[in-house]
Amino acid sequence: MATEQDTAALKERIEEALRGTDVEKASAAIASVHPADRADLYERLEPELGEAFLALLSAEDAGELLGFLEEEVREAVAARMPRATLARVLDKTSHDVAVDVLRTLPPSDTARVLSAMVTAQEVTPLLGHEDESAGGLMTRGYVALHPEMTVHQAITFMRLRKPLADEAYYLYVLDAANHLQGVVNLRELMISEPETPIVEVMTKDAITVEPGTDQEEVARLIQHYRLRALPVVDENRVLKGIVTADDAMTVASEEATEDMYRMVGLLSDDSVFAPVVVSARRRLPWLAINLVTAFLAAAMVAVFEDTIAKAAALAVFMPVVAGQGGNSGIQSITIVVRGLALGEIQPEDARRVLAKEVSIGLVKGLLFGAVIGAAAWAWQGAPAWGLVVGLALMLNMFVAGFLGATIPLGLRALKLDPAIASGIFLTAFTDVLGFLFLLGLGALMIEQLK
Amino acid sequence: MATEQDTAALKERIEEALRGTDVEKASAAIASVHPADRADLYERLEPELGEAFLALLSAEDAGELLGFLEEEVREAVAARMPRATLARVLDKTSHDVAVDVLRTLPPSDTARVLSAMVTAQEVTPLLGHEDESAGGLMTRGYVALHPEMTVHQAITFMRLRKPLADEAYYLYVLDAANHLQGVVNLRELMISEPETPIVEVMTKDAITVEPGTDQEEVARLIQHYRLRALPVVDENRVLKGIVTADDAMTVASEEATEDMYRMVGLLSDDSVFAPVVVSARRRLPWLAINLVTAFLAAAMVAVFEDTIAKAAALAVFMPVVAGQGGNSGIQSITIVVRGLALGEIQPEDARRVLAKEVSIGLVKGLLFGAVIGAAAWAWQGAPAWGLVVGLALMLNMFVAGFLGATIPLGLRALKLDPAIASGIFLTAFTDVLGFLFLLGLGALMIEQLK
Repeated sequence: MATEQDTAALKERIEEALRGTDVEKASAAIASVHPADRADLYERLEPELGEAFLALLSAEDAGELLGFLEEEVREAVAARMPRATLARVLDKTSHDVAVDVLRTLPPSDTARVLSAMVTAQEVTPLLGHEDESAGGLMTRGYVALHPEMTVHQAITFMRLRKPLADEAYYLYVLDAANHLQGVVNLRELMISEPETPIVEVMTKDAITVEPGTDQEEVARLIQHYRLRALPVVDENRVLKGIVTADDAMTVASEEATEDMYRMVGLLSDDSVFAPVVVSARRRLPWLAINLVTAFLAAAMVAVFEDTIAKAAALAVFMPVVAGQGGNSGIQSITIVVRGLALGEIQPEDARRVLAKEVSIGLVKGLLFGAVIGAAAWAWQGAPAWGLVVGLALMLNMFVAGFLGATIPLGLRALKLDPAIASGIFLTAFTDVLGFLFLLGLGALMIEQLK
Repeated sequence: MATEQDTAALKERIEEALRGTDVEKASAAIASVHPADRADLYERLEPELGEAFLALLSAEDAGELLGFLEEEVREAVAARMPRATLARVLDKTSHDVAVDVLRTLPPSDTARVLSAMVTAQEVTPLLGHEDESAGGLMTRGYVALHPEMTVHQAITFMRLRKPLADEAYYLYVLDAANHLQGVVNLRELMISEPETPIVEVMTKDAITVEPGTDQEEVARLIQHYRLRALPVVDENRVLKGIVTADDAMTVASEEATEDMYRMVGLLSDDSVFAPVVVSARRRLPWLAINLVTAFLAAAMVAVFEDTIAKAAALAVFMPVVAGQGGNSGIQSITIVVRGLALGEIQPEDARRVLAKEVSIGLVKGLLFGAVIGAAAWAWQGAPAWGLVVGLALMLNMFVAGFLGATIPLGLRALKLDPAIASGIFLTAFTDVLGFLFLLGLGALMIEQLK
């Protein structure tokens, strides 16, 4: 099968075939591409060829394609598909993808498509859950076994039922009322003696989540316990669905992107290939907030305009004090935000984390304060310059360590995302306070600075 | 099984049991904890209790523990274990973990431990590979089937061999010289007719990598194609080992952390709970570089000291121009670094990405330049203030967009990590150039500013 290494060339061949009238040639070219790469290819195709591309796919292939497309593209594809076709395609895609698509349709269309779907009974109960929760990620694609079965009966049952591609890996033992009794490992099933009762093969104390559990937590649990799938149960331990490890991997990757984006004030739906106007509009709000904070810093400087007019060299040290403080604090924030996201920092660790970042801020502040202070003294020829600049830097780096830990820990304590524009808040503080320390000390010692 | 929700309480119970003499009570408490949580627990245990904890684990449990521990802790545990015990423990852990541990031992110890290991034959060939490559991640834990087998024979073979926990999921068809012929899905094996030849059930054109493939690429391929495992073959298609999806998930998460860390000049082995001195030493080098760049910015300001002495309000706008430029550029860098890491940006996209980020920089520059320019004019009462401040900000945001795309794309073109301290480089430029634009324009129009 052709993999992405060859797709640049393939893209041209397929585009050419789609432009021509040789349907078979185009179909053959598409068939030679892995479904994951088909999605990439479709996303990069000239828009007018997209329709022709879709028309050549079977319902199975189109269903698989939906699963690999970026969310926005998927929505656009679904919106343009005839409702009857869409119903057939959604029958062939995984439940969580079908649910995502159905949610984006106008309500009347959702009902129409659902009524034409063979899998409506499985998909409908999933529609009520939050998108970014365990409920929104789960699928009903698993095999339910009876506690009374033997290993042999379970294997025969599977051979007759012929579960879909992935389903066969997720085997759950449910009683008549769908209460989760245990999880069976396919390997155990294969290597156990045929007459062994299934209850002796299953793991009883499976780790589970509830439908409302946040998707970030779901991904973390799957990664932490290295699970293949995580069963989602209600408060009575009735199995509602499962979240699979590959979805967890996608979520973990999206959440990492989101954290990186949020720290610098980007919205999580921004992307490299969004149109300029869309991206610009998405980036403006936080930059506007940043402008306000920059005005605060400017206002702080304005307070000391007279001092600067008297000792203009103070302005020279402004970027040093503000910049070192900002970068130092951003390091602390990054460590803490990532530690929280990965679950390394638990609530009881807050005090320890704070103490550590403050200590590091102090160590760095003493060190860099001494260096910069000495440089300032040497350059300006008066010891007061060393004191003012060195002390200002030291104080600012100390504050940066304190805020670098406090901002994300505080946001988490308030049940907010610890990453939200925390970088922008932090640099606002290190700018404003850095200028206050530098120019304030400068004003106090103005006589010694001249 | 107790999960992490309960571990805070469990930790106390276990610490208490370890301090006492009731070995059975302590063993029972430890046995009730999931292996993943045992690792967390061990890492948080008071050091003097760690030895007692380890002494209570069987070789299997200790082997499993090693797989879940942080790399640094794992090394420390291995270093302290008697060599004979370590050999027994490594026999029970996955090959890639065993290899990682063996690599950290003094060479003479490696030989001694290996000679005592039952799995030495499987592990030794893995020792020669780069740690952060497919070769360093791979394990030989898979089931090798013959092309002449039938489905029934394959199942019987597995039932007799009783492969270890995970191995059973990874079935590869190899000829007599270990050339990879195809991959068999466990589900296909279960639902196919017993007399079907195995070659009819297998997938022939499996996606593979070579041992030297970088681990980031390995993780990306596993995620992109949603694989359970990725076979590693040499240039003759001889199967050398496999990389499993759970290892890929760990790698993807580590690489995301590394990118976040590197952008702000942190080393990837820094962590929340490293001792203050260790962390401080790790963070100093880049902050020292940052200090040099801050001096450059300061030097730029120093050039215009006379101008500032004449129009001190220029200093007020310094943080606005530098800060808006820096934050705007950091947004571009974050988008590009993440797009490169996720493989969304391919080499042929460089021009398009650059054009987009420059356009956004221009849009943002025009907008914010107009706002700030108007504010400066209004505050200082002379239109020249609006021109100087507005134009400086516009230019700086334009440059920020340009550099925000060029720095990571350029680092990637030079085969360097696009994230390496790119944030620190960028803000160096936006500071220096921002001050040049603002103070340079100010100097040119100094007569109109007074």
